[in-house]
Amino acid sequence: MIIILKPDPDPTQLESLQSWLRSRDLDIHMSQGQTSTIMGLVGDTTVVDIGQIRMFDIVEDVKRVQEPYKKANRKFHPQDTVIPLGEGTIGGGSFTLIAGPCSVESKEQILVVAQEVKRAGATALRGGAYKPRTSPYAFQGMREEGIALLLEARAATGLPIVTELMDASDLGAFEHVDVIQVGARNMQNFALLKVLGKIDKPILLKRGLAATIEELLMSAEYIMANGNEQVILCERGIRTFEVATRNTLDLSAIPVLKELTHLPIIVDPSHATGVARYVRPLSLAALAAGADGLIVEVHNDPAHAKCDGAQSLTPEAFSELSDAIAEMLPIVHKAVIPAR
Amino acid sequence: MIIILKPDPDPTQLESLQSWLRSRDLDIHMSQGQTSTIMGLVGDTTVVDIGQIRMFDIVEDVKRVQEPYKKANRKFHPQDTVIPLGEGTIGGGSFTLIAGPCSVESKEQILVVAQEVKRAGATALRGGAYKPRTSPYAFQGMREEGIALLLEARAATGLPIVTELMDASDLGAFEHVDVIQVGARNMQNFALLKVLGKIDKPILLKRGLAATIEELLMSAEYIMANGNEQVILCERGIRTFEVATRNTLDLSAIPVLKELTHLPIIVDPSHATGVARYVRPLSLAALAAGADGLIVEVHNDPAHAKCDGAQSLTPEAFSELSDAIAEMLPIVHKAVIPAR
Amino acid sequence: MIIILKPDPDPTQLESLQSWLRSRDLDIHMSQGQTSTIMGLVGDTTVVDIGQIRMFDIVEDVKRVQEPYKKANRKFHPQDTVIPLGEGTIGGGSFTLIAGPCSVESKEQILVVAQEVKRAGATALRGGAYKPRTSPYAFQGMREEGIALLLEARAATGLPIVTELMDASDLGAFEHVDVIQVGARNMQNFALLKVLGKIDKPILLKRGLAATIEELLMSAEYIMANGNEQVILCERGIRTFEVATRNTLDLSAIPVLKELTHLPIIVDPSHATGVARYVRPLSLAALAAGADGLIVEVHNDPAHAKCDGAQSLTPEAFSELSDAIAEMLPIVHKAVIPAR
Amino acid sequence: MIIILKPDPDPTQLESLQSWLRSRDLDIHMSQGQTSTIMGLVGDTTVVDIGQIRMFDIVEDVKRVQEPYKKANRKFHPQDTVIPLGEGTIGGGSFTLIAGPCSVESKEQILVVAQEVKRAGATALRGGAYKPRTSPYAFQGMREEGIALLLEARAATGLPIVTELMDASDLGAFEHVDVIQVGARNMQNFALLKVLGKIDKPILLKRGLAATIEELLMSAEYIMANGNEQVILCERGIRTFEVATRNTLDLSAIPVLKELTHLPIIVDPSHATGVARYVRPLSLAALAAGADGLIVEVHNDPAHAKCDGAQSLTPEAFSELSDAIAEMLPIVHKAVIPAR
Repeated sequence: MIIILKPDPDPTQLESLQSWLRSRDLDIHMSQGQTSTIMGLVGDTTVVDIGQIRMFDIVEDVKRVQEPYKKANRKFHPQDTVIPLGEGTIGGGSFTLIAGPCSVESKEQILVVAQEVKRAGATALRGGAYKPRTSPYAFQGMREEGIALLLEARAATGLPIVTELMDASDLGAFEHVDVIQVGARNMQNFALLKVLGKIDKPILLKRGLAATIEELLMSAEYIMANGNEQVILCERGIRTFEVATRNTLDLSAIPVLKELTHLPIIVDPSHATGVARYVRPLSLAALAAGADGLIVEVHNDPAHAKCDGAQSLTPEAFSELSDAIAEMLPIVHKAVIPAR
Repeated sequence: MIIILKPDPDPTQLESLQSWLRSRDLDIHMSQGQTSTIMGLVGDTTVVDIGQIRMFDIVEDVKRVQEPYKKANRKFHPQDTVIPLGEGTIGGGSFTLIAGPCSVESKEQILVVAQEVKRAGATALRGGAYKPRTSPYAFQGMREEGIALLLEARAATGLPIVTELMDASDLGAFEHVDVIQVGARNMQNFALLKVLGKIDKPILLKRGLAATIEELLMSAEYIMANGNEQVILCERGIRTFEVATRNTLDLSAIPVLKELTHLPIIVDPSHATGVARYVRPLSLAALAAGADGLIVEVHNDPAHAKCDGAQSLTPEAFSELSDAIAEMLPIVHKAVIPAR
Repeated sequence: MIIILKPDPDPTQLESLQSWLRSRDLDIHMSQGQTSTIMGLVGDTTVVDIGQIRMFDIVEDVKRVQEPYKKANRKFHPQDTVIPLGEGTIGGGSFTLIAGPCSVESKEQILVVAQEVKRAGATALRGGAYKPRTSPYAFQGMREEGIALLLEARAATGLPIVTELMDASDLGAFEHVDVIQVGARNMQNFALLKVLGKIDKPILLKRGLAATIEELLMSAEYIMANGNEQVILCERGIRTFEVATRNTLDLSAIPVLKELTHLPIIVDPSHATGVARYVRPLSLAALAAGADGLIVEVHNDPAHAKCDGAQSLTPEAFSELSDAIAEMLPIVHKAVIPAR
Repeated sequence: MIIILKPDPDPTQLESLQSWLRSRDLDIHMSQGQTSTIMGLVGDTTVVDIGQIRMFDIVEDVKRVQEPYKKANRKFHPQDTVIPLGEGTIGGGSFTLIAGPCSVESKEQILVVAQEVKRAGATALRGGAYKPRTSPYAFQGMREEGIALLLEARAATGLPIVTELMDASDLGAFEHVDVIQVGARNMQNFALLKVLGKIDKPILLKRGLAATIEELLMSAEYIMANGNEQVILCERGIRTFEVATRNTLDLSAIPVLKELTHLPIIVDPSHATGVARYVRPLSLAALAAGADGLIVEVHNDPAHAKCDGAQSLTPEAFSELSDAIAEMLPIVHKAVIPAR
């Protein structure tokens, strides 16, 4: 961390700042320029609040040099994290294809979709049982019953289950779930993140609509700092001024994250665009950009889906996408030189 | 709600769409133009998912005519909601001044600040006991102990207490709190909103960093639909590309919200800007734009605050702000013609 | 276009609105619902200003049904526009690779880069002669002399030349240039667009940092409405809150634009990210998403480039990228089912 | 400027970086920490391109300490710039009220509006003669004829004239105009800015929709560096995700700009919101936040305005606004402690 002082700092205040910094176990290196003095801080600055340093009148500006996250940081953990999922893994060179409906709606629906996506090459089944809905009047999901149906679908197909938890008090129902998803709107629900940090199960953490890449990593850090290092990051679009798609899918985040962190990164083109016919080109783009997998909405009858039908692929379209991915994958593996 | 059909819609699909709509208790008014057919829907469209209608192949576009919220809607509740707070009220012409430190740090600190802000004209005391922090390594608040100290400060000063709840499982500790705050990052924590809809206490609901005004009202609707109609809205800055301030305070939201809803609206210039010296001009601007009050950070020793010191006013600066408000208030009341 | 009236509209005002609409050659279809009346307008609504309709007191809302652009609209021109460039084309199934330095700096530099990118497979040479720089104190380009050097490079390599025009008064110097580029900051410089609409040369139109996809098409429409239909669209990143990359590359714009317009679309990953090591993964992603080509910065000595060295590929890295594209291209052509 | 080096920098590269910096007349102060080395640069870093420094492999990061603008910088010019306008001034404590229609439409229209706004207290007349319109099919303004009508209105009322120039080639028509406006979409039309830097007339520079405050100041610097120091800054809303208003008026920019620059700052609430009934509360808010004036759209017959009628005040509403401002002004002058 670097502190730039205003010209001619008051010596008493300077002493006060220095002792405040030393009390946080930081070594100080002073560098006197012609017009300004710079203090370089050495030590663990992760825990220092920049805002507090700015409070000192003699401080012109403060700049962070180190990232404020440790456990998620590739610098301290150069090898890719590889997370077991069913018979395969997420990360480490495999390409994960998670597919399924926005919501679990009925036994028949989830079983049909599970079989269809399994046949088409999916490696895991997604499905919402607890649904975050903007409107209190919209369908809120089948809850425990939905989880039970997902587990039936797993029993029938062998596909591991990915589903969203919205509230720590429902955690009991997720005991047999394979991967717990944290939704975009809960990315900074720190109480929830802390609870998930104490369990032994992979967490699929979706990027918030207004979250920077650094904040996404800080939320991963919350989970990891509490003991659970199995975090899968998910880019799912950020909120911008553009209205042609529901959100703006930030595929640049993939090479950036590959550089900054060792955690696997998957992409959700369905929620990002909100439009089924854009899912295919953006899925292939995510693959080409270096993503470790996709999470895609598939519904056997999109026109009658209880939520987000407009963004769901039919099983046929998903199968074609899966074939296209299989064909492109060897080329990408050859072509994509690791970002580092 | 209006549905625009593509030219020459397939009659079978049209029949299917019409029966789908009628099954949702909607009357359909067909309007045949030269190049397109328009369906006008009459009935309660609040619960209809636009995305599902878009799934029908014959549909070109769907437009909402009515707002998707009812209880928060001024159309159905023209009178301003007025919420009792201590010996006064929020809304209905009064100007509420909530002040206090970012975090409760010690008995001495909160008592001193409470007395100072009371003397300066504050009508309520704010202070964080459960703190949402981006970093897991930052100070997370004094929790139950912090609530107890806030209640001591209330006993000493008579100021009602406003403090943030992050997790429904902590609700027990908030029994004697006057107003429960929902932070910006939890604005769409729907599980939390539902719980707060079932209690009998005013809720101060902060706008999320990427939340539209409509989404803010939908979150208010979550609380109200569950039975608690005492919701105070709070504009606290949205996330944009501008970096000169921490967030971009959206003061236009005040006249817009005054038009759309009967709920009171307050403004948080401290979190919006992140810079103490911008708090005063933006506080006066919020007043002039028609806000019902402010929530402002005040700390007796900003340089040593455990969080967000850079945005905290000293008690002296707050007192001067309070005086300026008192002087401007009668002019504003005279000058601001209600938005409707 | 659809106009939603407020309940119980005043008959005199309604008559006034109707006559205003008829005076614009629009047919009106009234549709009376229970709670609101809807007017459907038939005719050329492209030229109607929605804001003016909103001025009528009886109007609740106005919604556009048709896009406000005609010549750029795929509905009226279903076939892809294919633009000749050198010995090849842009659009229509080819993949265009435009490469070169940010700025022309010297004869030696541009000749070396031109030969290198030609060898690596580029189909056109880019290079800035007139430079838009945020700071008046930064290098502003070699101007006429730079154009002359580009033409020398063309003579030596056969590569057609793409370079930016900032001011119509400099147009004379661009007589022998193959493609004129309009920079992101000039996308809504309507005076410039009109002038470029009157010449017979392809225009590469970059999307503005805050421009919606519709606005990009409206700017293309400006050029086309003035007579020049050879417009190449370029996605180069939009401005969002994310700071990890210079801008946020919006690859969703590719399938959206492919649907809305017949014009070719290329992608500039260099300016979008500002970071050379992200150019490769995002180039491949753009290809996979269906782009018609790329415009990439390449410099023989990035560390000593007079501008934007940080985002420039070395000729070696560009050559590797070109090889990867060549390998992926047949798979993509097979895999990418046209968006329509 | 501060350069943070990667651990253990290669000595040859370090030497190369140092000589590159010295060749730009910068003194280097090395500061060796435990984990990283910091270089502090002393000298005129305004002209140094950060991107080029980042190109050196040994560089971890670069941070600017000084603002990249000089002439617009309050540090080097502490006194407020005061610009003569008609019989009064802009800046320096006066409050300027510029009012008039979006477009000049006819002699009668502009004369009536000019007289009305004069009577209501306006200090200058605005009116568009050359109109930037998103659509090539929309009304493009009366051009030279419009300027002539504005001059007639000035002759009749004494109000100085403010009108927009879109293209340097039209400058001749602006000879007798009092203030030349640069529109938001031309804020980074650097060719235009350079031309305006060479004339002797105040320039009203509107902030671009995606322009940061620093970029606005850099555009002012373009004009000033070319010799014209009479620049009036105008906040008119930035583009964000919020759709309830056309743009998001950034009133925080006022105290920020007051701190950074000595140039006067006015606010355009009409274009920012696009809605006439929000103009009044936001005008008063701009005043309270410390703006030096307003530019407001007023039309004698908004329903029949040729552009932007929806955001135009009637003369009556403007007169009421002007009265409210007059009443609030002495309180604000007393209440607003200068930002410095």
